[in-house]
Amino acid sequence: MALRVLDLVGIFVFGITGALVGVRKKLDVFGILVLAMVTGLGGGFIRDVLIGATPPAALVDWRYLVVPVAAGLLTFFLHPGIGRVERLVNIFDAAGLALFCVTGARIALDYGLPPLSAALVGTIAGIGGGVIRDLLSGRVPVVLRSEIYATPAFLGATIVVAAHAAGYTAPWIAIAAAAVCFVIRLLAIRRGWNAPLPRTP
Amino acid sequence: MALRVLDLVGIFVFGITGALVGVRKKLDVFGILVLAMVTGLGGGFIRDVLIGATPPAALVDWRYLVVPVAAGLLTFFLHPGIGRVERLVNIFDAAGLALFCVTGARIALDYGLPPLSAALVGTIAGIGGGVIRDLLSGRVPVVLRSEIYATPAFLGATIVVAAHAAGYTAPWIAIAAAAVCFVIRLLAIRRGWNAPLPRTP
Amino acid sequence: MALRVLDLVGIFVFGITGALVGVRKKLDVFGILVLAMVTGLGGGFIRDVLIGATPPAALVDWRYLVVPVAAGLLTFFLHPGIGRVERLVNIFDAAGLALFCVTGARIALDYGLPPLSAALVGTIAGIGGGVIRDLLSGRVPVVLRSEIYATPAFLGATIVVAAHAAGYTAPWIAIAAAAVCFVIRLLAIRRGWNAPLPRTP
Repeated sequence: MALRVLDLVGIFVFGITGALVGVRKKLDVFGILVLAMVTGLGGGFIRDVLIGATPPAALVDWRYLVVPVAAGLLTFFLHPGIGRVERLVNIFDAAGLALFCVTGARIALDYGLPPLSAALVGTIAGIGGGVIRDLLSGRVPVVLRSEIYATPAFLGATIVVAAHAAGYTAPWIAIAAAAVCFVIRLLAIRRGWNAPLPRTP
Repeated sequence: MALRVLDLVGIFVFGITGALVGVRKKLDVFGILVLAMVTGLGGGFIRDVLIGATPPAALVDWRYLVVPVAAGLLTFFLHPGIGRVERLVNIFDAAGLALFCVTGARIALDYGLPPLSAALVGTIAGIGGGVIRDLLSGRVPVVLRSEIYATPAFLGATIVVAAHAAGYTAPWIAIAAAAVCFVIRLLAIRRGWNAPLPRTP
Repeated sequence: MALRVLDLVGIFVFGITGALVGVRKKLDVFGILVLAMVTGLGGGFIRDVLIGATPPAALVDWRYLVVPVAAGLLTFFLHPGIGRVERLVNIFDAAGLALFCVTGARIALDYGLPPLSAALVGTIAGIGGGVIRDLLSGRVPVVLRSEIYATPAFLGATIVVAAHAAGYTAPWIAIAAAAVCFVIRLLAIRRGWNAPLPRTP
């Protein structure tokens, strides 16, 4: 139940990032809704297809579909000036990353995947929505930009997986793991945390 | 049976759009065939993967594979001058959009998906081939360009779903729904129908 | 058993190409590892999702995940100068193409797909990793560049399928088919083999 709530909140915040990118690219309301839906639902689709849970949750329960549409319409009417859009995208995207990496890991564990695999599914679910959004809108995929992105997601997923292996499955653990991922990602953006670059010979 | 015919015609016309884009980008015959196959089969692959009907229809029945190859070769030999390519792409793409949104919705309903979800699967199947074609060939995805694209597809899918819910499942309904989608999409292109843009603060 | 080894070697060499592209694009170590994993595992994910073998092999057996990470780290520390990167990408990519087209065809056959479909799955598995790598890193997808790419993959897959239909399933046949694909692809690059272009009217 808590897992479902986290999943829906993740869809909502990722949907907002898709809609914000649509606003920035001066798309019309339908283009903004398409980006909101694709970004909001994309990570979950990839997750469910990979673990074999098809049709994906969002296609079985229609109430899932309301969430990204609501996020898109909210953004369409209440978006800030273009100058502040990118900053909001980063914040909401970090939130979606955090929520999806922990729900992805948990759902994979519930489907019987071994621990490291579940952590990877969580990571993929976390980064998936942002990557699809960036590919469609012609931006450099966020996972390949300079500040660390996949690593906080993998960390959040790993915390959930490790706790699960030790028998701790209470919802607050997932929320705490998501918070860790969210904070690390935001710190990385604020402080420009980069990882080592290859040596130039 | 009629559903299968509509599906194959959709593969064919989408294959033509992929090949036309390949001609425009001066690809060789193999690149043109790859784009024809990816565009023709892509929407159906996404549809079948999402609803859990794997392997996709086109991989189970090899005769499906002949259709996009034929579309590719036909376009390779009979394509018009570059100046007319884009207009033909729009027309054939609108036809593929129309056919795939109704077959996608119908196939999803037959697989037991609830109505709104089936309409969304139809919409995704309709826009999928064009998006994959544009991503691979470096064009702005058609679904994010100015004239409405996903909305006619959603409308066509919804007509099929609503009729099905009311007990009407005859093939002519799907054909009529496809015609509605096709006409609306073409009108949108001809008349430059745009949707509301976000306010600029 | 031999099939699994070929699959893992294919993941490794495709992982190297992903990491090399990351080096060329001056990504940090995490971006390089992400590209290595996505390129190494992508083709296999697409293959397993298409034939219905989910979760994909790499998500069930965690030892699969070590391979692209190792490829990424190896490349991160031992990469050559930027001038030689592209040539190495072509060579390792040809090796991955060759290995994945034969393992993809064989795995599809083992899953009961008919011959032509299995050959197509092999082709898709072969070209998939490179296409995902190029899409994410903003390069023109290798399958659409001038030298033939999908055709050697289809040929390697077809050899495996034809031999299988004739009752020959020994591992050396897959290795020979991979060698044929590898050599043809490298010759195409070295000698600039292009396919016919559409006539310009």
